[in-house]
Amino acid sequence: MRGVSVIGIGSTPYGVLEGKPLKELATLACNEAIRNAQIDRKEIQAFYLGNFVSGILLSQETIAPLVGNCLQLSKEVPCTKVEGACCSAGIAFRQGFILIASGFADIVLVAGVEKMTSAPIDRNTTAISSGMDWEEEGKAGLTFPGLFGLVAHRYMHDFGVSIETIGKVSVKNRANGAKNPRARFRKEVTLEEVMRSRPISDPLKLYDCCSIADGASAAVLCRADWADKFTDQPVDIVGSGQALGYSTLYAAPDLTTISVTVRAAQQAYQMANLKPADIDFVELHDCFTIAELVDSEDLGFFEKGKGGRALEDGITQVDGRLPINPSGGLLAKGHPVGATGIGQIVEIVKQLRGEHENQVKDAQIGLAHNVGATGSVGTVHILKRR
Amino acid sequence: MRGVSVIGIGSTPYGVLEGKPLKELATLACNEAIRNAQIDRKEIQAFYLGNFVSGILLSQETIAPLVGNCLQLSKEVPCTKVEGACCSAGIAFRQGFILIASGFADIVLVAGVEKMTSAPIDRNTTAISSGMDWEEEGKAGLTFPGLFGLVAHRYMHDFGVSIETIGKVSVKNRANGAKNPRARFRKEVTLEEVMRSRPISDPLKLYDCCSIADGASAAVLCRADWADKFTDQPVDIVGSGQALGYSTLYAAPDLTTISVTVRAAQQAYQMANLKPADIDFVELHDCFTIAELVDSEDLGFFEKGKGGRALEDGITQVDGRLPINPSGGLLAKGHPVGATGIGQIVEIVKQLRGEHENQVKDAQIGLAHNVGATGSVGTVHILKRR
Repeated sequence: MRGVSVIGIGSTPYGVLEGKPLKELATLACNEAIRNAQIDRKEIQAFYLGNFVSGILLSQETIAPLVGNCLQLSKEVPCTKVEGACCSAGIAFRQGFILIASGFADIVLVAGVEKMTSAPIDRNTTAISSGMDWEEEGKAGLTFPGLFGLVAHRYMHDFGVSIETIGKVSVKNRANGAKNPRARFRKEVTLEEVMRSRPISDPLKLYDCCSIADGASAAVLCRADWADKFTDQPVDIVGSGQALGYSTLYAAPDLTTISVTVRAAQQAYQMANLKPADIDFVELHDCFTIAELVDSEDLGFFEKGKGGRALEDGITQVDGRLPINPSGGLLAKGHPVGATGIGQIVEIVKQLRGEHENQVKDAQIGLAHNVGATGSVGTVHILKRR
Repeated sequence: MRGVSVIGIGSTPYGVLEGKPLKELATLACNEAIRNAQIDRKEIQAFYLGNFVSGILLSQETIAPLVGNCLQLSKEVPCTKVEGACCSAGIAFRQGFILIASGFADIVLVAGVEKMTSAPIDRNTTAISSGMDWEEEGKAGLTFPGLFGLVAHRYMHDFGVSIETIGKVSVKNRANGAKNPRARFRKEVTLEEVMRSRPISDPLKLYDCCSIADGASAAVLCRADWADKFTDQPVDIVGSGQALGYSTLYAAPDLTTISVTVRAAQQAYQMANLKPADIDFVELHDCFTIAELVDSEDLGFFEKGKGGRALEDGITQVDGRLPINPSGGLLAKGHPVGATGIGQIVEIVKQLRGEHENQVKDAQIGLAHNVGATGSVGTVHILKRR
């Protein structure tokens, strides 16, 4: 297996991007990544694009060749859309990694995009629920806030963790996001504001939930032995995992573990020959405050039920032992669903290059964790500064 | 690059499959392919699923892990949906091929599925039009029948071919489909019936157009050097191509050529070290009668404008020099969009095993051609009996 590096990154800000259609968002992020990589676009040999709901919200499918044409890629380039709900971009990133690691290509463009805020909010709710098993749980009325409300109740019950501790995830991530120009929400919030925000799905309140957004993020991947030609700061992809989880909540044996995270992480740690203690910082899938605690345990950083304690002790702050979501995460950046997985990669590469607006000191190894649907699909990637 | 073989195939019939939800269709086809390959499902290391419009028509996305769970695949298996309109399954097949050829996996399951007939017909029209560039052409009212009507007029004008010659594609393919138990339409039609069928998009009439359908098709791929363990009749994938075409009709320099076909075919011929004259029979993307003539020329079998002559001369009949769509093609089988590309593979493998219901004599090498959207994406695969 050949080594693979990230040599270029690009991202739109996440938020309400009025007047920017889907293909323009993707094109902006990709062009930025191509410029950042200092490559000629004619060198790109394949393009993978992650997206979740452009069909339902915008009546637009087949967007990978559409964006490929906007980018004026060579007509020899296979352009492929992949979809795995909130994990769509994590999968796109992995497909690019596989294509280069296997020797099938030398330079690959990967991206994720979502355009959500132009559709009415109730259409967004329906669209996002398409990530569930519609026949089993979706049409019965379960939503993702509903699902994570159940998870939060169980977690609080099993481990004696308070809703205030869970709410502090939002305080931390909003403070981080306040420094990130790509974040939708750039205002700090207090725990009191979190607790007083309006109820969404008991015990979760508004500030416990991430928000929809428009946005796109992109990366240029390159065989590792060529990376020096293009950049002084190559970042190597040393581990990649993608696994299968449960498609319905009722099938999951434990509400406080998202099993796909555990397996995808094991695959990535094994490929990288690293263990959780070797990771310097993490961008993980905090679609809800409770998800960050659960994820941080499933990724092997803390014992089950101890993620809240680690947060309270400051371990996951940007100046702590293991900063989690120094970008602000989904809670502050917003969640343009199909873009998020590569948005995390963009944040990690900026950290490893030492150019992040909320820099983690001595960042050498970062981990990206992206999960989709009812935990049925998830990816973990480990990136390392050379 | 390692050799890759098809060791198992499965397919539902195509048609109006009432009471069979999407995930059940996919599960049926996959289970048949797994049984046909005589493997234990625990040996499957990855799963790619092609689908186009389950989000728009059924409010169901993230179907790859959903079907992966129905199949009880190992929870280590990455399950990935790919989408490229009518080419979705061609892309899924190619992703599986790449994963094995590159050494990333030894045994991969690939499938395509679509469930269309349970939705009202006008929702199907909207759904299928999402394959176009919605902002540029889709919302202006162009549909796929409209597009191929324009192509037919131009073709007739440029090459002096009559609409009767074009209609004979339907007569041939319906006659082939009459022998195929997987076809939606199993009744022969006369040229007179084609000419008298109701107008759809001038000069195309009802029997010039393929029909929507429900259906799923699947294949089990395996590293070539293991194939003998599982089957006495391995079929090798000797060529694979996927290219980029124009996303809008107005951008295409020539209406009578689908350029993505030319490029994807060149890639596949080059990989296989074969030329068009080496191909024994073809399953190509006859979404409309005119498409078969255009495709047969773009694939290099006939000079531009001579596809109709070849048809009139009987060359493309099942007992001709180059049988085209001995399965009945999309015109007779129906077009469950996201399944079609692997449906073609199923037909080709059955021919190469000598077990097809409309057998091509001495079939050694078959070519599958799948094209999506306004010709923006296309795949070509060449399969060979060992």
